Amino acid sequence: MNNSPQVTHMRAEIAEQPAALRATIDALLPRAADAAALAGDTHQVLFIARGTSDNAAVYGSYLLQAHAGRLATLASPSIATAYHTRIDLSGVLAVALSQSGRTEEIVETLAWARDCGARALAITNGAASPLADTADVTFLTRAGTERAVPATKTFTTQLAALAVLAIGLGADLDPGELRRVPDEIEAMLAAGPAGLDPIVSELAEVKGVVVSGRGIAYAAALELALKLKEACYLHAMGLSYADLLHGPIAVVDARTPAILLAAGSGPTLDGTVELARRVTGAGARAYGIGGGDRLAAACTRALPGPRLPEWLAPLGLIVPGQLLTEALARRLGLDPDRPRGLNKVTQTA
Amino acid sequence: MNNSPQVTHMRAEIAEQPAALRATIDALLPRAADAAALAGDTHQVLFIARGTSDNAAVYGSYLLQAHAGRLATLASPSIATAYHTRIDLSGVLAVALSQSGRTEEIVETLAWARDCGARALAITNGAASPLADTADVTFLTRAGTERAVPATKTFTTQLAALAVLAIGLGADLDPGELRRVPDEIEAMLAAGPAGLDPIVSELAEVKGVVVSGRGIAYAAALELALKLKEACYLHAMGLSYADLLHGPIAVVDARTPAILLAAGSGPTLDGTVELARRVTGAGARAYGIGGGDRLAAACTRALPGPRLPEWLAPLGLIVPGQLLTEALARRLGLDPDRPRGLNKVTQTA
Repeated sequence: MNNSPQVTHMRAEIAEQPAALRATIDALLPRAADAAALAGDTHQVLFIARGTSDNAAVYGSYLLQAHAGRLATLASPSIATAYHTRIDLSGVLAVALSQSGRTEEIVETLAWARDCGARALAITNGAASPLADTADVTFLTRAGTERAVPATKTFTTQLAALAVLAIGLGADLDPGELRRVPDEIEAMLAAGPAGLDPIVSELAEVKGVVVSGRGIAYAAALELALKLKEACYLHAMGLSYADLLHGPIAVVDARTPAILLAAGSGPTLDGTVELARRVTGAGARAYGIGGGDRLAAACTRALPGPRLPEWLAPLGLIVPGQLLTEALARRLGLDPDRPRGLNKVTQTA
Repeated sequence: MNNSPQVTHMRAEIAEQPAALRATIDALLPRAADAAALAGDTHQVLFIARGTSDNAAVYGSYLLQAHAGRLATLASPSIATAYHTRIDLSGVLAVALSQSGRTEEIVETLAWARDCGARALAITNGAASPLADTADVTFLTRAGTERAVPATKTFTTQLAALAVLAIGLGADLDPGELRRVPDEIEAMLAAGPAGLDPIVSELAEVKGVVVSGRGIAYAAALELALKLKEACYLHAMGLSYADLLHGPIAVVDARTPAILLAAGSGPTLDGTVELARRVTGAGARAYGIGGGDRLAAACTRALPGPRLPEWLAPLGLIVPGQLLTEALARRLGLDPDRPRGLNKVTQTA
């Protein structure tokens, strides 16, 4: 690819997100009750995932805890696959996420969770996959074929499926707001990557970057850090706001900027604005994504975020990050579709 | 400090670990039954922590799940402190870790967990701290005063407290093996940092490094990554073995080595040896810590680990990492005791 004007698969797939989200939301919203029926009298959710899917699970974890009032945490797959320990998982809804539905570690861990007494839900783009076969109920995302190794529409459709899950589990959230997401992302994409070029130019000159967000926005920060690592080979450190202040704030400097993501409103916006001030106060550059005028004003440069309520913001916040990753990879002379050392379906031995 | 021969607080505190561990283990092992009584009929553990304490919690999570057969996962403090959501935590033993016992976010989250129905255990070095006041039972570590900002003896004494907790909760583990840990760390320190110098020299020339480990060793990898970020301003990316293969393996190259930590035995050693081969096969340097002769043979350079069973290995695996961090900071002309931008007690607004 190397700076050629040809559209990369990654760029094309970023653009396919409104359609993929519409199809996914249309297919899954009517099935929110299936998740409720499966959950039954379970009282908590345990997510099973790796990589991009794990970042989606972080979104699910915050969303379910903040809005559905139930404990939702992340499993450690090696407990199942390496230690083979039996744990009492009665009362647990296990939710496994895998784009392909073929990552053996995830399939094996979901099967283990069922054996341990959990109910099993799969969120996957792989209709006839082993993961779907293993689950009691499958939420099939409609991302279509994803050719670029760095996942884009897989991630946002997984977030949409998790939003449906939260609604199914009784979250006090408006499904109509979820239905508006594809239009908003379409509007963001149509407006074009305004302000992207100078950030791409500056990031092309650094080796490392901190990517941070808090609460529900944290998942989008982790996902952007992963994209920048895998497609741009950038030393991208995804850290929560609180973890950043607990030590790694030392790492930001004139050569190590921070990218800060926030919804346009919500209880974590103030802290993110304050973090931007600390970053610039330490002599480092801060790039904002979202967070409205206040975050933009506190940052060195900023990209507009989505006009979405906080609970749905990560679906839109990741989009400027995806565009940034794709453009930076090309600027660096890399092919964003085929990072070195990676295949589309990752197996963990 | 800047390369002066004077001993840093950090170096002195690394050396104090055998004594701190002996005092902590002597004080807490007789109290294993208190944890059992508090846990009562709870069926899972939820850890509440940030920074170094969060890395200790990762150890606790793997240890309890692999050996005590109970679900043990990490809380998201912002659910309590930013979203103020009430979650049913009956059946949950909440375990909060904080060196000082004065990090407001952690105190507030433990209080929230109690209000939500959880039993509350504190692991802290702060005897008369707000965290101890908030808990039903406190496991007081005996680390003594820690002057260097990068925590060392705080971390290892927290791991010892968590090992006692696992024993109290019925893990099939030998307390005698825990009692042997201080002697083994003493022997490691007496043997000196053999092999450290060439690794320090090589790391002084790079901007970023991946730090990885799997299963129970993962906690030590995360903690080493945090040390390298806060004391050496290195772009240190702490990643689990599986997460590394799911994308970020692309980030290792001739200028971005990997540090791989493993116990000398156990179900995750094979995978770590294989990962070392993938790293060197990708043209990057791999530095091993522990993992016996097999990991050393697969790595570019290696530091010996502890002669400890896998379940206790992180207490010893972090020690060469601490020595490496302290020596690298001095080599870079930095004061490891006082990283820029950090205080000893971190408050998260």
